[in-house]
Amino acid sequence: MKREHSVDYESRASRDDHQSLRLWLRLLACAYRIERRVRRRLRTQFATTLPRFDFLAQLERHPKGLKMGEISERMMVTGGNVTGIADELESAGLIVRDPVPTDRRAYTVRLTSAGRRAFGEMARAHERWIVESMAGLTAREKTAMFESLAKLKRHAAIVESGGAA
Amino acid sequence: MKREHSVDYESRASRDDHQSLRLWLRLLACAYRIERRVRRRLRTQFATTLPRFDFLAQLERHPKGLKMGEISERMMVTGGNVTGIADELESAGLIVRDPVPTDRRAYTVRLTSAGRRAFGEMARAHERWIVESMAGLTAREKTAMFESLAKLKRHAAIVESGGAA
Repeated sequence: MKREHSVDYESRASRDDHQSLRLWLRLLACAYRIERRVRRRLRTQFATTLPRFDFLAQLERHPKGLKMGEISERMMVTGGNVTGIADELESAGLIVRDPVPTDRRAYTVRLTSAGRRAFGEMARAHERWIVESMAGLTAREKTAMFESLAKLKRHAAIVESGGAA
Repeated sequence: MKREHSVDYESRASRDDHQSLRLWLRLLACAYRIERRVRRRLRTQFATTLPRFDFLAQLERHPKGLKMGEISERMMVTGGNVTGIADELESAGLIVRDPVPTDRRAYTVRLTSAGRRAFGEMARAHERWIVESMAGLTAREKTAMFESLAKLKRHAAIVESGGAA
């Protein structure tokens, strides 16, 4: 009995492990697939990149401007060099730099009105692409997935900060 | 009546759009978060990278070996330079190259037994990290998310190949 019980337990554990791994690989595959499509469309329709779009998105949420460090922290997409992105966006007239009165070496960055307009247009297109990508799911399925992802995110935060890390 | 109906429809549409966008941003945030943890642990515990792990994972599934082009196609993670990765893995003794008799310029790559052992150890650790990351969800929630992601993936394939692309 003991042995059988332990075999059952192990086979169940291994089945659950396998389920987690398959879920992870599918989550990653979906995220990559949709992201790839967004990158491609940003390039073909707006001649821009995902890190630039993400940079502008952070500024759009903070009309008074952000310091460069704050932008890096908030950006979803990693890998982009924020100083390089800021230089490009500034020469395109989409952002301006303001000096910080209390710190001579620091500056904040904010959208110009041209930047706000350009970002608005991209954001509307971006939302359309995402809506298309998600159209295979019902509202109920979207809600359920949204809630499961919230749980996943909360749990991930605990794993990262706690003993299991 | 007509007008009210149309306003209702629009406000519902905009709410649904917003739901899709929020779902996408959360999906991406979760994927990035877990992936970042995997990358960090591969680096600290195995002094390796996610593209190298992914490269080995493809070979593990194809014991007879794969051509370089087949490996690039199958890899989940983009951005890694497969030739560079193959050079590193070959000098670490984890893979070998075999000539292709029918094509003098082509070669296939396969795992050595040291490579198989090293990958097995990494894959077991990787599975543990993923199981930890997913432990916030019940088996039922994992199954539901797995199924929704399958629908999302199928729909994305249709969007990409069809008129909506």
